[in-house]
Amino acid sequence: MRGTVLHATGDVRLDELPDTAVRRPTDALVRVVASCVCGSDLWGYRGISPVEGPKRMGHEFVGVVEEVGAEVRTVRPGDFVIAPFAVSDGTCVHCRNGIHTSCASGGYWGGTARAGHDIDGGQAEYVVSPFADGTLVATSGVPDDSLVPSLLTLSDVMGTGHHAAIAAKVGPGDNVVVVGDGAVGLCAVLAAARLGAERVIAMSRHADRQALATAFGATDIVATRGEEGVAAVKDLLGGGADAVLECVGTKESMDQALYSVRPGGRVGYVGVPAGGPEFPVRHLFANNIAIGGGVAPVRAYLDELLAAVLSGEIDPGKVFDAEYPLDRVADAYADMDNRKVVKALLRP
Amino acid sequence: MRGTVLHATGDVRLDELPDTAVRRPTDALVRVVASCVCGSDLWGYRGISPVEGPKRMGHEFVGVVEEVGAEVRTVRPGDFVIAPFAVSDGTCVHCRNGIHTSCASGGYWGGTARAGHDIDGGQAEYVVSPFADGTLVATSGVPDDSLVPSLLTLSDVMGTGHHAAIAAKVGPGDNVVVVGDGAVGLCAVLAAARLGAERVIAMSRHADRQALATAFGATDIVATRGEEGVAAVKDLLGGGADAVLECVGTKESMDQALYSVRPGGRVGYVGVPAGGPEFPVRHLFANNIAIGGGVAPVRAYLDELLAAVLSGEIDPGKVFDAEYPLDRVADAYADMDNRKVVKALLRP
Repeated sequence: MRGTVLHATGDVRLDELPDTAVRRPTDALVRVVASCVCGSDLWGYRGISPVEGPKRMGHEFVGVVEEVGAEVRTVRPGDFVIAPFAVSDGTCVHCRNGIHTSCASGGYWGGTARAGHDIDGGQAEYVVSPFADGTLVATSGVPDDSLVPSLLTLSDVMGTGHHAAIAAKVGPGDNVVVVGDGAVGLCAVLAAARLGAERVIAMSRHADRQALATAFGATDIVATRGEEGVAAVKDLLGGGADAVLECVGTKESMDQALYSVRPGGRVGYVGVPAGGPEFPVRHLFANNIAIGGGVAPVRAYLDELLAAVLSGEIDPGKVFDAEYPLDRVADAYADMDNRKVVKALLRP
Repeated sequence: MRGTVLHATGDVRLDELPDTAVRRPTDALVRVVASCVCGSDLWGYRGISPVEGPKRMGHEFVGVVEEVGAEVRTVRPGDFVIAPFAVSDGTCVHCRNGIHTSCASGGYWGGTARAGHDIDGGQAEYVVSPFADGTLVATSGVPDDSLVPSLLTLSDVMGTGHHAAIAAKVGPGDNVVVVGDGAVGLCAVLAAARLGAERVIAMSRHADRQALATAFGATDIVATRGEEGVAAVKDLLGGGADAVLECVGTKESMDQALYSVRPGGRVGYVGVPAGGPEFPVRHLFANNIAIGGGVAPVRAYLDELLAAVLSGEIDPGKVFDAEYPLDRVADAYADMDNRKVVKALLRP
């Protein structure tokens, strides 16, 4: 079978790999219908993270189950399934607490499970899911192909944007600022609007992303950054935002969030932190700013968001602005790296 | 009149000061019935914070109103009042949001109001409260003298301990750890128990404080610290605590909190941060640990906690283990500095 491997900085290829197969009784073999490239996939590609040898890539995919192990109960061959970006057993204390990303046995696609075995990457023709009952979520029936992009966002970006909004306790009437206009930031706009926010300010300097943010429910756009951006938010909202959703992960974006929020407000952050400790404790303490978030347990949100997609309430698949056959995966990485596209969808 | 002045590190005295008086129409003159020494008063006394000239001391007091300005509506001469440790106008956007400590016009006793004028200190015979309507809370009738210690804790330590529990969203069934066995930590134990926590683990190495924590509702005591303390908590609670209340403010105590909490858990912190940024962002991100808290808006909690004291539901006044006449204020500071006493009450 063919699968994507990052060999070195800037060198990503679709390689011929050994066929994957059901090996454990809790495994399921999935034929991938669609996968995609994540902003975080670019870290190694760009040389921001070291590449310590060939690495299987891809942690967002949907597909059809082809075979299951003897103990799998909730998915069957023929089921269309969504794979959250983290593998989870669904039974440990952290899964029961809804923090599937901290699963005692799980791990990430393309990495190693805490239980010990390697996990396939999702930018491939086939993937074996460990802990299939705890990880995969099946739709009832095979969905129309037009729904595939939105269902694919439930693997990561829509669940992650939603997590930012949940972590910042966004609710009806809130004034919300979203920092970051990547796929996650755009989904965070959608999530905040869906949760009842009265005003949603999207911070974006790109006309196409501004337009999508508006389509997703942004009521205002702020195109400036830094102190100027904070001043623009405060002009719009008076004392600052009730909630800010930080969807980038740099020191600059975190500062943008921490200084745009009002005293007593909440920051939800889901941008993978690119730096070290960046929280200015005295500012947080003096202003009673609460911070929540982290690596999103999207598995916990899947049922709710799947229903929202299937009912047509949300259409997060709009974040995909380019589609590539899997054998052009290198172009997909390059185009995202050059910011030619917001998010690239891959079809085997 | 006589009032407490910190002149230099280790040099605190009861000085003869000019009489204070109602000067603005929103002022109220209060005859102090009881005040006390706060752990944070010791920072200047100990030389941890620089002393940049004589400073009026004391931000926790209760008393009887003697005179009010023309615009004061909610307190009258003869009223027994509780003064929160921060002055607030009660009308600005931050006060309306319940974050009275961020009041646009307010400030701290012994400091300068954001509105511009100096504010008296509370370890004195008389104090003028600015923004009396927004700041002071009157009891109905003059309470029995036996209630004075508990009412005095509503100025700061009980409201601050409660804030830690609120910031950490303590609720029924939670497993809670309290880091810090000073007056605030002990009040945090009381607050967590009152809010329905199932288990409350007090971290304390002192038998007298352990006994008081138990009287306040602690179900378990952990006497170890650091990695040993974290291991002890995890032995008791499995994956870690649902909520941790950090009531000290050092790097060590914050680490104790951040590593005792479970993935997806909440840390409420009210210890005045003694260091710089100390939040290990990657640990928080990886484990979805939420952090909230800060300088407690005790004014927001006063009605609720006053009712709890008056009904006998809570008796936080037990944190006072020594009482001094005001002219022995220097002894009160010294005894707290030497940890001879947990919290010193002062009577003019």
